[in-house]
Amino acid sequence: MRRAEFAVDPETNPEELEAFLEEMSFGFIGMIDSEGNPAVTPLNFVYTGGTVYFHGSRIGKKMRSIAGNERVSFAAAKEYAVIPSYFTDPLLACPATSYFKSVRIDGRVRIVDDPQEKAEALGALMRKLQPEGGHKPIDASDPDYAPRLKGVAVLRLDAERISAKFKFGQNLSDTSRQAVTDGLAGRALPLDIETIELMRRYCPHAIGD
Amino acid sequence: MRRAEFAVDPETNPEELEAFLEEMSFGFIGMIDSEGNPAVTPLNFVYTGGTVYFHGSRIGKKMRSIAGNERVSFAAAKEYAVIPSYFTDPLLACPATSYFKSVRIDGRVRIVDDPQEKAEALGALMRKLQPEGGHKPIDASDPDYAPRLKGVAVLRLDAERISAKFKFGQNLSDTSRQAVTDGLAGRALPLDIETIELMRRYCPHAIGD
Repeated sequence: MRRAEFAVDPETNPEELEAFLEEMSFGFIGMIDSEGNPAVTPLNFVYTGGTVYFHGSRIGKKMRSIAGNERVSFAAAKEYAVIPSYFTDPLLACPATSYFKSVRIDGRVRIVDDPQEKAEALGALMRKLQPEGGHKPIDASDPDYAPRLKGVAVLRLDAERISAKFKFGQNLSDTSRQAVTDGLAGRALPLDIETIELMRRYCPHAIGD
Repeated sequence: MRRAEFAVDPETNPEELEAFLEEMSFGFIGMIDSEGNPAVTPLNFVYTGGTVYFHGSRIGKKMRSIAGNERVSFAAAKEYAVIPSYFTDPLLACPATSYFKSVRIDGRVRIVDDPQEKAEALGALMRKLQPEGGHKPIDASDPDYAPRLKGVAVLRLDAERISAKFKFGQNLSDTSRQAVTDGLAGRALPLDIETIELMRRYCPHAIGD
């Protein structure tokens, strides 16, 4: 079940989704292996306009072994805050929860064979993970890169369904939301102040209105 | 493909694996949905002696919908450092990589119905995520908790296969390993010094020998 109040619509908020996927250096791909069982693997990735690219010799082998089932599910998530029960309840453990952003992309994956597309995908991955540069641009016609491009597997996942869940207390009463905000402000872990800002951003009523 | 030099044997190093799973507040469960497609979801979890526990009304619904396929794959991962290519190569992008710990647990999942086991699982989850306490102990016979325990779904995943990969440059030559160590020491991002320690711990030859 996806509770509607936590959902972020990728259609109306593509920039929020893209910013989050740009911030996340890795995610988890779920596939069905040759024996019909689920298999989950963490991977670095880059997302660009509805397509997720991955790379690695490991992936190539794994993916060829599941060539019979190209359907995959990919998810990335970041936990911002564990919310202790005592922020809102002095007695019971039940309100304990966590606030997070998560994005899931389902679709079909295929192996990229075109050297030009491989070079562009790996270039995008480098710009994401090594934005300071410090290497010769990846170019399929460059004799330094051409043989190496053949040795690396690149996969593309074309999104058929994208869903996002940003959970920041949208379901709370005003009283509980204020109590969580006060609790986070007092605790002041590294992400707590940002979490308060995200509660303000995503919650239906701005605190202090 | 799992490169042997990155593997950490859960049989000989159970304490390293357990310490990592205790540190990770959430992981990703991969299931096969009612249409036969993979589905990946992030979830808080607690690991205790070969069993992973999850909770949530959401999970209950999701899991009941896939009652026909109890096989799941669960993974947790932490990225310690993105290693830029220029640490070891002034020209090409190819050596760019990341160092991380990841653990994957495959097995069968089932819904826990016994109130006592539910209470114990949720108690273990609370001790992990809220170690400072601040709530009445979860007890199936406590009238404050008994009805709430009925309303929450608890799942247990019994591990049939556990694999761990801790990637910290084990495949590097001594020269490259020293270059990465120097690069991390100079960069000094929050996890870089810990990453150097993990390179020393997991690499086949101690640096400085």
